[in-house]
Amino acid sequence: MTTEQLIHQIKFKKSFLCIGLDIDLTKIPPHLLELEDPIFEFNKTIIDATHDLCVSYKPNTAFYEAYGIKGWQSLQKTINYINEKYPKIFTIADAKRGDIGNTSSMYAKAFFEDLNFDSVTIAPYMGKDSVEPFLAFENKHAILLALTSNEGAFDFQTLESNGKELYKHVLETSKKWKNAQNLMYVVGATKAEYFSEIRKIIPNNFLLVPGVGAQGGNLLEVCKYGMNSDIGLLINSSRGIIYASNDIDFAQKAREEALKMQLEMEEILENYFS
Amino acid sequence: MTTEQLIHQIKFKKSFLCIGLDIDLTKIPPHLLELEDPIFEFNKTIIDATHDLCVSYKPNTAFYEAYGIKGWQSLQKTINYINEKYPKIFTIADAKRGDIGNTSSMYAKAFFEDLNFDSVTIAPYMGKDSVEPFLAFENKHAILLALTSNEGAFDFQTLESNGKELYKHVLETSKKWKNAQNLMYVVGATKAEYFSEIRKIIPNNFLLVPGVGAQGGNLLEVCKYGMNSDIGLLINSSRGIIYASNDIDFAQKAREEALKMQLEMEEILENYFS
Repeated sequence: MTTEQLIHQIKFKKSFLCIGLDIDLTKIPPHLLELEDPIFEFNKTIIDATHDLCVSYKPNTAFYEAYGIKGWQSLQKTINYINEKYPKIFTIADAKRGDIGNTSSMYAKAFFEDLNFDSVTIAPYMGKDSVEPFLAFENKHAILLALTSNEGAFDFQTLESNGKELYKHVLETSKKWKNAQNLMYVVGATKAEYFSEIRKIIPNNFLLVPGVGAQGGNLLEVCKYGMNSDIGLLINSSRGIIYASNDIDFAQKAREEALKMQLEMEEILENYFS
Repeated sequence: MTTEQLIHQIKFKKSFLCIGLDIDLTKIPPHLLELEDPIFEFNKTIIDATHDLCVSYKPNTAFYEAYGIKGWQSLQKTINYINEKYPKIFTIADAKRGDIGNTSSMYAKAFFEDLNFDSVTIAPYMGKDSVEPFLAFENKHAILLALTSNEGAFDFQTLESNGKELYKHVLETSKKWKNAQNLMYVVGATKAEYFSEIRKIIPNNFLLVPGVGAQGGNLLEVCKYGMNSDIGLLINSSRGIIYASNDIDFAQKAREEALKMQLEMEEILENYFS
């Protein structure tokens, strides 16, 4: 999917919501556990109930790998289902990959060709040759970790070098890489005040923002400092939506939570672009 | 496997060789491609031909994921084969994972419980809570990226903060984490002169060293600066061994290359510990 198509979908749906599909068998409604593939059945039901309210789904690969081959099959079925039934949805493999060049090429093949995701999240520690193989694919996107929303973000990401934090070095260095127009960045919502400085470095790239909701970030603050003229934000919510209920009404409750966020986003878009 | 068991194996086999199983279907002998699971057949043959010359095997997960569910099955069969037939081998999932706490727990479950590897490689960018879930498993090991052997290593890993490069911050900070005795580190062989400084910070931990051979590192130099009284090194070679031939003699040629390295290591061990 091109960035332009994503922007069009955001404007059409009045939503820049991404729903994280982090499926934990101990948290989904118990009645699903009797089915042959409870993870896929759960995803399918959540997707059918929310697809008009969001522009993106983001399965976190860890939650599938934890169930071995069966989990990998559930992931494959989930992405195939989205691609076939809702092809205008922007899909993110939240995999946090990254390795030396020839290995990153294999990961890119896995996520862009075998599974056919639109994008994959990447850790920047190994530098340029670990990321560029992901940028070589047309209409695919590498979403580079910049400033994450967890406690450990402050261990290394905010270390200062030459008067600048590491995550700013990541932004400034990566924007010079080949096909940098295919880069997006992960920036956690728990630090909304950082967004204005980040926008000075990368005014145009999309930011994938976890940490709104369950992790305590504030949507309005993030939009105030992080939005650009193309909107430029994908706000992720996982647990707050998909585990709104673990009873037979789970899909309806998930839809209600997604709708709340979509309406908030609609209002923000109207204020911002009016 | 405990660290003591690994050290015992190194002394018994007079080898600290790790063989990387980075299987690319375009590089293995063509006659294997007719079999149902060429990747597993290749691995099995390589393992049978070299298991007495090395102490560790390291499949790189990217090369399996690139073939989707079939690749994941090959990985599962490979680790099961090693665990059943050669249980004294130290196994490394070269996966370069790392995510927020609850997600890293799922990755740990995937590699330590579902697949039953002894260790997994981890990227440090997300800090403490992304690594500690891997350290909570008894007799399992997290191998943290410190200084890698690729060109991009110099993009961020050597940025100086408070007079110290980032990779040294990674070493110093991580050694204070809970269960840090279960940490090992990746340090590339292409920078042998760095090893003496690294050993000042982490005198005791094992180092997994890629980049000897194909990537140009020198074994003797690495040992001179990197070895400790427990040996403390696992030297990885992948392509130089497994792709020594792509004809029907591939296992024999792989054995010859592994034997060369084992004999070099035996000599180094004799000189170092005499």
